[in-house]
Amino acid sequence: MHPLITLTTDFGLEEGYVAAMKGVILGINPEATIVDLCHLIAPQDLLQAAFVLDTTYPYFPEGTLHVVVVDPGVGTGRRAVALATPRATFLAPDNGVLSYVLEREGEPWEEPPRATALSLAMKERPLVPVLRAVALTNSRYWLKSQSATFHGRDLFAPVAAHLSLGLPLEELGAEIGSLLAFPIPRPEPRPGGGILCHILHIDRFGDLITDARREDLPEGRLLVEVAGRYIQGLSSSYAEGGDLLTIIGSAGYLEVAAKNASAADLLGAKVGDTVRLSTY
Amino acid sequence: MHPLITLTTDFGLEEGYVAAMKGVILGINPEATIVDLCHLIAPQDLLQAAFVLDTTYPYFPEGTLHVVVVDPGVGTGRRAVALATPRATFLAPDNGVLSYVLEREGEPWEEPPRATALSLAMKERPLVPVLRAVALTNSRYWLKSQSATFHGRDLFAPVAAHLSLGLPLEELGAEIGSLLAFPIPRPEPRPGGGILCHILHIDRFGDLITDARREDLPEGRLLVEVAGRYIQGLSSSYAEGGDLLTIIGSAGYLEVAAKNASAADLLGAKVGDTVRLSTY
Amino acid sequence: MHPLITLTTDFGLEEGYVAAMKGVILGINPEATIVDLCHLIAPQDLLQAAFVLDTTYPYFPEGTLHVVVVDPGVGTGRRAVALATPRATFLAPDNGVLSYVLEREGEPWEEPPRATALSLAMKERPLVPVLRAVALTNSRYWLKSQSATFHGRDLFAPVAAHLSLGLPLEELGAEIGSLLAFPIPRPEPRPGGGILCHILHIDRFGDLITDARREDLPEGRLLVEVAGRYIQGLSSSYAEGGDLLTIIGSAGYLEVAAKNASAADLLGAKVGDTVRLSTY
Repeated sequence: MHPLITLTTDFGLEEGYVAAMKGVILGINPEATIVDLCHLIAPQDLLQAAFVLDTTYPYFPEGTLHVVVVDPGVGTGRRAVALATPRATFLAPDNGVLSYVLEREGEPWEEPPRATALSLAMKERPLVPVLRAVALTNSRYWLKSQSATFHGRDLFAPVAAHLSLGLPLEELGAEIGSLLAFPIPRPEPRPGGGILCHILHIDRFGDLITDARREDLPEGRLLVEVAGRYIQGLSSSYAEGGDLLTIIGSAGYLEVAAKNASAADLLGAKVGDTVRLSTY
Repeated sequence: MHPLITLTTDFGLEEGYVAAMKGVILGINPEATIVDLCHLIAPQDLLQAAFVLDTTYPYFPEGTLHVVVVDPGVGTGRRAVALATPRATFLAPDNGVLSYVLEREGEPWEEPPRATALSLAMKERPLVPVLRAVALTNSRYWLKSQSATFHGRDLFAPVAAHLSLGLPLEELGAEIGSLLAFPIPRPEPRPGGGILCHILHIDRFGDLITDARREDLPEGRLLVEVAGRYIQGLSSSYAEGGDLLTIIGSAGYLEVAAKNASAADLLGAKVGDTVRLSTY
Repeated sequence: MHPLITLTTDFGLEEGYVAAMKGVILGINPEATIVDLCHLIAPQDLLQAAFVLDTTYPYFPEGTLHVVVVDPGVGTGRRAVALATPRATFLAPDNGVLSYVLEREGEPWEEPPRATALSLAMKERPLVPVLRAVALTNSRYWLKSQSATFHGRDLFAPVAAHLSLGLPLEELGAEIGSLLAFPIPRPEPRPGGGILCHILHIDRFGDLITDARREDLPEGRLLVEVAGRYIQGLSSSYAEGGDLLTIIGSAGYLEVAAKNASAADLLGAKVGDTVRLSTY
């Protein structure tokens, strides 16, 4: 058996925080294979963590354990939870960081479209039957000495290691029926025609990743308006298109990119900005 | 057997330096599990390397091999050493980077408190009986071709790999009785009352980590003065407290933090600055 | 068997792109050992990727699979290839990123020295008999769903995983007889005497790594002119020498370094700048 554990945090790479988690895991299960999913989530940025997790975890094999520690409420009463889906198990604080996972692994969660900026207003989201969650309350599987500030090392890492050894989920704590989640950002049809979408994420290349998927695009020849600029048509590669181009990126979302340059720099765009879709 | 090797360097991640070390190790011992402890130590910053190592290695299982290559003197006469403790084995240049390890694994090393800034004045520190060290002089376990600039790859990596295969320490070179060390920074009582501590490290979140541990705090209601600002009381989580707060962090040291912000930015604080502790 | 796979990309560490590649590989071959060679190649910088790869891969054991995804032409007609050498196998886009590998593993490829800046003018380079290459055209070994933008995840990762399981190279596609390559930058003798070399790479320490190897240096006492400054003699360590010094670095190239400082910052030097070598 090759228990696979991924780690997603906002700890950065300048300290030994991530390594401490790995030391704890390997002390309990020396056979574990640990993969860094991402540690450069902006400090306490739940949307970015949720998005990066969502665009990556589906590429891991079934049964992978995904540990997510972006945790502004560490040391407060916020719950720590384990969520089991048919595909994988997730360990995280109950703070909305699993919102995309709940949407993808459960059923869509209807919310009225909002003509406003990205919102992370958290609500209790009831779990559908295919999902099971427990609150991590059984301290038997935590490190003996607990800090108030580093549950990644003291709670999530040892719990993940024990799960990877085959410990049943129900050993970790009592079952719970809902988790906190934010409404997944989606494009909104505009009264006067066209569609308004949002920049969800800007990657290292300066590509602007929006919340519009292929099926959200208007029928016909696509016209994209972003930061006062217009882009016609959808390119099929980053190298084919004008200086500014649009493309369906690797996560299935519409991206605005610049040829051999950063669209974010070129346009002065930032996460949360809106992008208008219409036709010409 | 799962020989576990950690790597701590100031090599950064922009080149293949760290990967070259891993290639060398895996060429000698394909079964080794290698964990990056930290590679973003500021170039040649021995205090930061020593501190990050000290706050992390205790979370690794017994018998782990910790390789530390922050090595301003590479290619000079400085010794390369292996230090064996009951808990772990350390490979490093003999330049003080193991100062905290010697303190934690050996016995406290008394120095008069200094009312000055952090000092890395190195002194020969004799080893207590529980610690054993050798100078790495047996070139049989090094790479055949040696550069003058990269002992991480040419000396420390192959030696670590051979140790992980079970090679006895004494094969690596002659035993030595002392290592270079700097006095561990500690808070100092002030003649007029109160305690002066130092900022040891600033992490990614902008938290200011001082050298004061819980047992160093004055009895009574804590008053902290830092960069001209006063903070009352000790918080029990980053989320509970005022905009500026103090907390005992995950390594057991007093930290100054800002709620959802960087205390370092807010206060213009830097490593080596002093922080005054008193009561109110 | 311990199939070893290294990954070199310009994906950065801020997203889950690298992790997605690892998830795909481990889903196909859970026994694979994956090592990050480098992920901070500047976006689409083929020279940097080729150089970092070349200075690192020789330290990996024979039979290692090196996956290189710096791929400005992803989604266009550019070929994806596998190159097998007696030492290792390389998977990469056919865009010149294997130029150094072809030189090292094959035979020198004579080009007239150019008295100009670094040039990445790509040419078809015929393979010598010891090298074998195939175009990766057999989609049976790719992910079922292919994006136009992320062949690292959808093509190179699964192909590498299948190769690591022992799949013969010829299963992946038809053999090809040449690859694109740029002429390897080399120092040029100057008509009036002396030698002109180029800054190939600047590392984290600010060291300027040139394309001059020890055998390229003029006989006699070395005089180096860089950015209007003169440096006499060759140091044997970074700690021995003046504030500015020259040394043969760990990859065998002449470097210009500054003691406890960044030569790049001190001199305002950048990749592509020339350095003059003569004697005094």
